[in-house]
Amino acid sequence: MDSKKSQDNKILEAITPKSRDISRWYTDVVLKAKLADYSPVKGCMIIRPYGFSIWENIQKILDAEFKRTGHQNAYFPIFIPESFLTKEAEHVEGFAPEVAWVTQGGREQLEERLAIRPTSEAIIGYMYSKWIESYRDLPVLINQWANVVRWEKVTRPFLRTTEFLWQEGHTAHRTHEDAQEEVARMLDIYRNFVENDLAIPLVTGEKSQKEKFAGALKTFTIEALMPDGQALQSGTSHDLGQNFAKAFDINFLDSDGERKLAWTTSWGMSTRIIGAVIMAHGDDRGLRLPPKVAPIQAVVIPIIYKDSAPIIEKARQITDRLAKRGIRVFLDDRDGFKPGWKYSEYEMMGVPLRVEIGQKDMEKQQVCLVRRDTQQKMFIPDANLEVETDRIMEEIHRTLFDQAKAILTSRTFQTESFNGFMEIIRDKHGMADVSWCGEQVCEDRFKAEAGATIRCFNPDPAVGNCVVCGTKGVRRVYVARAY
Amino acid sequence: MDSKKSQDNKILEAITPKSRDISRWYTDVVLKAKLADYSPVKGCMIIRPYGFSIWENIQKILDAEFKRTGHQNAYFPIFIPESFLTKEAEHVEGFAPEVAWVTQGGREQLEERLAIRPTSEAIIGYMYSKWIESYRDLPVLINQWANVVRWEKVTRPFLRTTEFLWQEGHTAHRTHEDAQEEVARMLDIYRNFVENDLAIPLVTGEKSQKEKFAGALKTFTIEALMPDGQALQSGTSHDLGQNFAKAFDINFLDSDGERKLAWTTSWGMSTRIIGAVIMAHGDDRGLRLPPKVAPIQAVVIPIIYKDSAPIIEKARQITDRLAKRGIRVFLDDRDGFKPGWKYSEYEMMGVPLRVEIGQKDMEKQQVCLVRRDTQQKMFIPDANLEVETDRIMEEIHRTLFDQAKAILTSRTFQTESFNGFMEIIRDKHGMADVSWCGEQVCEDRFKAEAGATIRCFNPDPAVGNCVVCGTKGVRRVYVARAY
Repeated sequence: MDSKKSQDNKILEAITPKSRDISRWYTDVVLKAKLADYSPVKGCMIIRPYGFSIWENIQKILDAEFKRTGHQNAYFPIFIPESFLTKEAEHVEGFAPEVAWVTQGGREQLEERLAIRPTSEAIIGYMYSKWIESYRDLPVLINQWANVVRWEKVTRPFLRTTEFLWQEGHTAHRTHEDAQEEVARMLDIYRNFVENDLAIPLVTGEKSQKEKFAGALKTFTIEALMPDGQALQSGTSHDLGQNFAKAFDINFLDSDGERKLAWTTSWGMSTRIIGAVIMAHGDDRGLRLPPKVAPIQAVVIPIIYKDSAPIIEKARQITDRLAKRGIRVFLDDRDGFKPGWKYSEYEMMGVPLRVEIGQKDMEKQQVCLVRRDTQQKMFIPDANLEVETDRIMEEIHRTLFDQAKAILTSRTFQTESFNGFMEIIRDKHGMADVSWCGEQVCEDRFKAEAGATIRCFNPDPAVGNCVVCGTKGVRRVYVARAY
Repeated sequence: MDSKKSQDNKILEAITPKSRDISRWYTDVVLKAKLADYSPVKGCMIIRPYGFSIWENIQKILDAEFKRTGHQNAYFPIFIPESFLTKEAEHVEGFAPEVAWVTQGGREQLEERLAIRPTSEAIIGYMYSKWIESYRDLPVLINQWANVVRWEKVTRPFLRTTEFLWQEGHTAHRTHEDAQEEVARMLDIYRNFVENDLAIPLVTGEKSQKEKFAGALKTFTIEALMPDGQALQSGTSHDLGQNFAKAFDINFLDSDGERKLAWTTSWGMSTRIIGAVIMAHGDDRGLRLPPKVAPIQAVVIPIIYKDSAPIIEKARQITDRLAKRGIRVFLDDRDGFKPGWKYSEYEMMGVPLRVEIGQKDMEKQQVCLVRRDTQQKMFIPDANLEVETDRIMEEIHRTLFDQAKAILTSRTFQTESFNGFMEIIRDKHGMADVSWCGEQVCEDRFKAEAGATIRCFNPDPAVGNCVVCGTKGVRRVYVARAY
């Protein structure tokens, strides 16, 4: 116990450099920045306050977007009776191996096992069949923020955990067109959010039939490419067609007097996206958090040599001014820690901007700003603090995005040969943008030979032949290893 | 299926009058106002968007209060290994009969059963023992918003459900005094919130040893009295002493160089409080929601006879003005529904204020306001809309509180005889404010004879003798039947 404890407290002990071993770096930084911790329950993590605060910021932005587009939040039970889960054949086949089962309630053995929701299409589909009577009741646009459980063999904090937090949207529509529009709208909200708030560039598109959501007609995805060349599925939007409407009898009386089946969709984004934020932006010194979701956007550090009172007072004023500007700002005026120690700490924690204020700065009526992303140090006139902070936050966002974009671009390769494909995946640790004949036998070879999968279709038309079999390509696809 | 569906849509079909049968009224209004619905999982409910929106408003206010007082949110696993739950003897004894157990994960049988958290002291205590090393790490002030499961035999929407949503605060302190202050602080936040935001008057105080939280040293509670004379425990704050610190070895190195056990607390409020809101304020026409948490605070209804365009335009302007004022306002300009039908609908839904605008109102440059709580109808000059709305919201809150307070006062009775006590509980459907000798044998008779329990201690000193045994009273206690 004690050795664990002392580790926790030495937050400045060296983290493995990202450039040397991204996997160990990831674990180090998650633990040392106190984003999360391992729990005594296999595969489950604790999201600690600093990590949870990122999730709260994500929730705030996404929830506002969902509401802006007419969705309302609700809450459905965590338990799904086994007989419900089995109603949609593909759905149960896809999820059954990952389900945790409740078999005892209080002191009684249950007659029917209850699944802990791995996703909620089944229970929500059942309720929609109760609630929807007429075309006037459509669309139904509901989202829920919830925990879900998928029994995983190999787990990593945020990226893959047995229990995770997410939002799942579930909608029902009168026509397939309406449902398809919804699927596209939500994918676009995800894309916008990840690019414009998390500063992570994406490729987006349709999944192959093999990789789609179990029970969907079509799945659309946003995929990020991590610096190690692995793709990370960051959000999905599913056109469920009438599959769940059939399974749960979600029908409505249309204006023409006929009873019809509804068209449903679902879409989700989870705490996994925090893993993408860590992985995409961090550097050897630790996290680099995108300003729009950073729990602390600016830290103010007074540099004290002799007379501390006026400097601390000045640091307080600066903190108040930034807070008034709407910046999430934290004043670290703790005694007993040297400024240099604090600098390293907040760098490791990924705080986008550091504001230093010392004796000399006060005399010159200036403050010292240090950007986390570039380590650039700037002295600015005191009076310009607010304007400069706004500007720098924007620049940090752009720099993080541009750097990640450069990785995505430079790691994405085209090829027409299978050897070329293998080289892209195995040697270049990249993503292949290749043509494919559409046959699953060829898709299976991506996995078998290179451990890679089709992440999504490239919307551009195929050029040339299938990179596997050499017959005519019908789809252009992004292929990569994935988290 | 179809009969259920048509019920859902006939929201105006008569609800059982509250004055006739409060229990049936409660169920009617929960379903008809679409606050919640029964689910196919025994004891679990669906919180529908209108009900969930109340919960979101509750969360917003409470979460801000928690943060203002230095707490941060985090997330701990839903699973608690059986061996953890059993570490604190009283705790496991209290909760074991209510636990749902996961015994299978994916396709494997688990070696150790996992409890679905009925509360999280055990898992959080374990983590605190890892995280807390020195007195400098204290206090730890963490809250989580989560779902919990307690296997219940008899359930009612919001008031008692197998799964429910809540927040649970868990804190660790250096001294017992610090912990006691925290317990009092959080009880006070609950009291303030319920009285000032939900308009429900309370009695508050310490629980008896029999009624305290399993594993606590002392439990403090806020108790509301419902119009049927039953008390509703609405929030609790627990002084856990060093019980969990002992069980999980939460120790720290103090400044004097000695290792000491920490002092911990926990406190929680759940979706049950929505049941209190419904029950306390509703009337024969349906809900009466307190303005501060009402999903819709004002509904604007244009009254259209002939030329609709200018009236709808005016209704839009009014809606925009109220929205700009920060009012949660909804414009119902649907065709095909008569104004009178809409009035009844929003009355049933408990919308605090109705704004009517018709031809005559436009000519007179006035709007018509109708209060839900009193049914009072007021014509006010158009220009005064914002100011009057603010004022009326305040008044509605006060009226709801005063009416509930009148019930609490008029239903609370003192007596010195056991016959008098029985009469209070059984005939007057009230709460007894009586003296008690402090012996459990007498406490047990409250339950055995009248189905009542000590809800909490009255902080005022006991006067006279124990209402049960006639020996010297040592405590003054509130006794009532409870939900």
